[in-house]
This record gives sequence, C-alpha cells and structure tokens, in this order.
Amino acid sequence: MEVLVLAADKPSLEYAARGVELYKKRLRGLSKTELRYVRGGCSKEVSARLLRASEGYVRIAVDERGKNMSTRELVNLWKEWQLNSVRRIAFMIGAAEGHSDELRAASDLVLSFGRHTMQHELALVVLLEQIYRVHTLLGGLPYHRD
Amino acid sequence: MEVLVLAADKPSLEYAARGVELYKKRLRGLSKTELRYVRGGCSKEVSARLLRASEGYVRIAVDERGKNMSTRELVNLWKEWQLNSVRRIAFMIGAAEGHSDELRAASDLVLSFGRHTMQHELALVVLLEQIYRVHTLLGGLPYHRD
Repeated sequence: MEVLVLAADKPSLEYAARGVELYKKRLRGLSKTELRYVRGGCSKEVSARLLRASEGYVRIAVDERGKNMSTRELVNLWKEWQLNSVRRIAFMIGAAEGHSDELRAASDLVLSFGRHTMQHELALVVLLEQIYRVHTLLGGLPYHRD
Repeated sequence: MEVLVLAADKPSLEYAARGVELYKKRLRGLSKTELRYVRGGCSKEVSARLLRASEGYVRIAVDERGKNMSTRELVNLWKEWQLNSVRRIAFMIGAAEGHSDELRAASDLVLSFGRHTMQHELALVVLLEQIYRVHTLLGGLPYHRD
C-alpha cells in the first residue's frame, strides 16, 4: 500500500525538520511512504492544493476535530485497508489555520491526534512517528509497548 | 504559579532535545516553568521518582488513558487554578513503559494528548508546546488560532 503524506510547506522549525527526517529515514524499507509538500497560504488555498494532490487516494484529513484512535485501532484500520486491497492512502496536514470544511467533507476519514491544538509542523512529526509505529507493529518489530 | 515539568532522562533523540530547548526558551519570561529530569528505569521505579519529585504540587500525569482536553479547556483549567490560588503544579511524563497505576491514582488529573501511543520524548515536546500555547493565550499573544 502506498502512503502519501501531504503537508503545507517544508517545516521551518529546525527540530520539526529533523524529526521529519528521522521518521522518513526509519520508514524507508518498512513502507512505501512518501512525503510531499504543497505550497502554503490561507486555509482555503492550502486545502484546495491538498485535495488536488490527493486525487485517487483514500483521503485521511488530520484534524483535531476528527476521530481520535489508539495505535492498535489504527493498526486494525490499516489491516482492513490491506484486506480491501486499498492501494493508495493520503494523510493531509493543514497549515496553521487548519483544513477547510470542504476538505473535511471530501475526506474518507478525519483523524485526530487529540483535541488540543498543535503547531502544524509538530503535528507532522506526530503523524510520521505514528505511521512508523503502525509499521513496526505490522512488521512485528520491537518498538511499540502497550 | 510555578510549573514543574518532570520527565525521565534527558531526551536522547536529537530532534526532541532541540524541540524541548526551543519551548523552554520561549517559555522564559512568559512563565515560571522549570523542567527537571528524574533517572530512568522501569515503570515502577520511574513513577516512584516522579511522585517523590512532585510532592507538594498539584499533580498532572500525562497518560494516553487520561482526559483529552482542547487547548481552550486547558486554558480554563489554568484560570481555575489561578483563581483557587494554586501555587505549584507538576506535569509528569513517564518513561517508555508509561506510568504505574499508583502514580495515576495519586494524581489530581490524568491528562491525555490523544489515545495514540507516542514516543515519550516526543510527548514531552507536545506537552511543552501546549504549555507555551496556554501561556500565549493567557497573555493575549498572537500564536494560537482557533
């Protein structure tokens, strides 16, 4: 299954850029995960670009108002996608102002990493760590502890 | 109000160490927030050290099985603490294996940053960014957007 992670603009905070690099590197070999940035801007513009870039993918919008799942639940969802021969999924992280209502409505799942607002570059690191964690569980690697 | 953030061992992941430094620096001047590390080890040992280090403080255990609050709810809780003349609060982040049941029971609040499991050093960055965000809201600074 191809995993596309879409975000607005490359991280400008150094720690976030390094965190993104770390999990990108760790995911290599474990998963076909690609990270792509769309141009930043206001919420509407960014959402429109994210929608264009995710055409043909199962769309997962990351948004604090979405469904908050445990890591095990996310692994089960992943297995379901695999069982249903889903080939391409795209995670979308908005810019500072979050996603438009239109993007949320056009998504197959709105996934929340908690109801608290997070700096969007930090949210990208949290998402990548979670995708990595899911893959270590799918691959039976010793990383996750319940 | 004094804010003590307790975690087990200094972050070993470079990005997490840098993220911690960034928010520590940003919090200076805005808040009396101190970060202190206890020695690592197994869950029971670390929890016992965290409990000793937080004696006399309102204790907030950070744990995925706790109460997940929005940033605005956290700000309101903070204001309540201030109204009630709470002088010292301590946030506690466990090591890789999380907190003991004893620590959770001894805490005034178990606060969750989502039901997903997060690397504990990343959770420390998320916590510090959130404490910073709360202070920008309390101080009326332009950082948070709803």
